[in-house]
Parts: sequence; structure tokens; C-alpha cells
Amino acid sequence: MGIDPGVASTGFGIVRVGDGGMSAADGGVIEAPPGKPMEGRMALIHDGLVELLAKHDPVAVALEDVYFGKNVRSAIAVGQARGVVLLAAAQAGVRCFDYTPQAVKMAVCGSGAAPKHQVQDMVGLLLGLPGPPRSDHAADALAVAICHAAHSRSPHALRAREGGVPVG
Amino acid sequence: MGIDPGVASTGFGIVRVGDGGMSAADGGVIEAPPGKPMEGRMALIHDGLVELLAKHDPVAVALEDVYFGKNVRSAIAVGQARGVVLLAAAQAGVRCFDYTPQAVKMAVCGSGAAPKHQVQDMVGLLLGLPGPPRSDHAADALAVAICHAAHSRSPHALRAREGGVPVG
Repeated sequence: MGIDPGVASTGFGIVRVGDGGMSAADGGVIEAPPGKPMEGRMALIHDGLVELLAKHDPVAVALEDVYFGKNVRSAIAVGQARGVVLLAAAQAGVRCFDYTPQAVKMAVCGSGAAPKHQVQDMVGLLLGLPGPPRSDHAADALAVAICHAAHSRSPHALRAREGGVPVG
Repeated sequence: MGIDPGVASTGFGIVRVGDGGMSAADGGVIEAPPGKPMEGRMALIHDGLVELLAKHDPVAVALEDVYFGKNVRSAIAVGQARGVVLLAAAQAGVRCFDYTPQAVKMAVCGSGAAPKHQVQDMVGLLLGLPGPPRSDHAADALAVAICHAAHSRSPHALRAREGGVPVG
């Protein structure tokens, strides 16, 4: 399960790995619109995650480690949503892994410097979707899920998995 | 209830307001030491908060808005703890309020530029403690609780309360 945490829109994507390759079991966005108190928005995100975790019972939660270039105030906001994601995963007994944007692009496109639209196109292609996901947040979440899946099923799984850092 | 959110140490302080003034009902630190996965640390913070909220049933949760001067990575970390605090409050049906460091110092010391040790001394004095709280995090949490209490009981409560911004 990949997550793109955000206060207003938290993207999620569930990638299933089988013998025939990867497929998307689910993908979308948990909305926590402005205009509601922040604590209520955190509860909306948490409720959505609890439901998804129960429904899909993922083996891991993967998050993109997108910290740099953000200003401190938006970093706090993303951090708040991340905290709720990590908590929901812990409550479901699921481990969390961080991947850098470069690792995600490398896993999805074969290049750590791939442009955003190429990542979205490749997400659609790799998961056998009719096109790139409509939501950017869902696409980003599916991309980090693909990245984790690729690292986990590599022939050198243990070593390759080090590309994903346990959050902590 | 005042909270000083942090990933390793989250300070808390419960201030009771009566006719005779303010007193400290509780104060201390929720520890979530490094060495555990981050999602487990979020769960420790959440568990601690859920217990405190149930025990003290506070009318509000006050947080200090200490964002600036921090780097982006530490802002993310504090944000993660804040997200868990806001969620626990929402789940307990308690509203959250943010105060700037200047507002806290003004409420506790009468000056928005008071040094840290003076804030700690005044927290001890205002709450009738034998001395300043031993933990900095507990002292900071009690200080923001005092600040919220002072704003809420002011003769111009409604206007003064604007000093505390609902988190959002």
C-alpha cells in the first residue's frame, strides 16, 4: 500500500503482486477539505486509512520521503498527515517504509530523474490501467507502492530492500 | 491541557482553573524513544494521549505554534507528533488551539520576549509548585495551558480568545 500524505488530499494506492506481474487493487484519494478544524481533518484521514487497511490488509505501507524544497510550514502540515498514516499502520500492525523520490522514479521509470508525467504514464502501463491514474495523489501513491513491491521481490530482496528505509 | 509535541518526548500539562487561581492537575512527558520504528513511536504517543484525555477530560487542548527556525526535517518530525496529538483530541471530542511562543510568554511572564528560564520559574510560581517543573517539555506544556486558560477566562474572553487560533 502506497501513501502520498497530505492534509487536504492523501493519495492511496494498493498494488497486488502476482506471478503475472503487478496490478492495482485500489487507488484514490482521502479528502480532508479545508474549512474544518485541523483535528477533524486528521480524524477524516485516520478514518479513511483504518478502513483501507482493514479492507486490503497490506503487507507493508510505503511512503515517499518528500521533504526537501518544502517550506517549514508545509513540512509541518505534511508531517501531521504522515503522523496519522504511521499511527494507522502501527494500529493495524503493518510496517512502514520510506523511499526517496529518486528511488521511486528509478523503480517506475528506470531513471531517478524522470519527469512527473512519465512516472504517471508508467504507473498506468505497469499496472495495466487504461491510462495514467486521473489523480496525481493516487498516481504518486501507486508509484511508491510499485517501488516497494519492486524492491521486495528483487532476487536480492534483502539487500535491495535497503533502498526502502524503515521509517524511524 | 497543554501539549508540547515531539517525536522523542511529548510534554503534557493539565491546568485546573478555580476561583482561587490556577493549579497543576498533572504534568510530565510521554516518552517514545529512538530505536523503535517511527510508526511504533507514534502509537506510544497516541496511547499516552488517549489515557491522559480520558483521565482528565480537558475542555481544550492548547499547543505552541513553534515552527520557525526549525529545519524542514525536524519540522516534519514535530508535525508527525502534532498530527497524532490533533487526532487523539478529535477522537476525544476536544478542540485544539494554537498559540505563538510570544503569546505564551506574554501570558506567563507579561512579556513576549521573556527568556526560557523565566517562563519555567513563572510556571512554577503561577501553579503553586515548589519550584519550576523539572522537565522542560512539561514546563512548556504547562505554559501553553496557562496561556489558554488566561485567554479563556479574561473579562473580554471572546476577544482575548482570538489570541489562540483554532488549529486549521
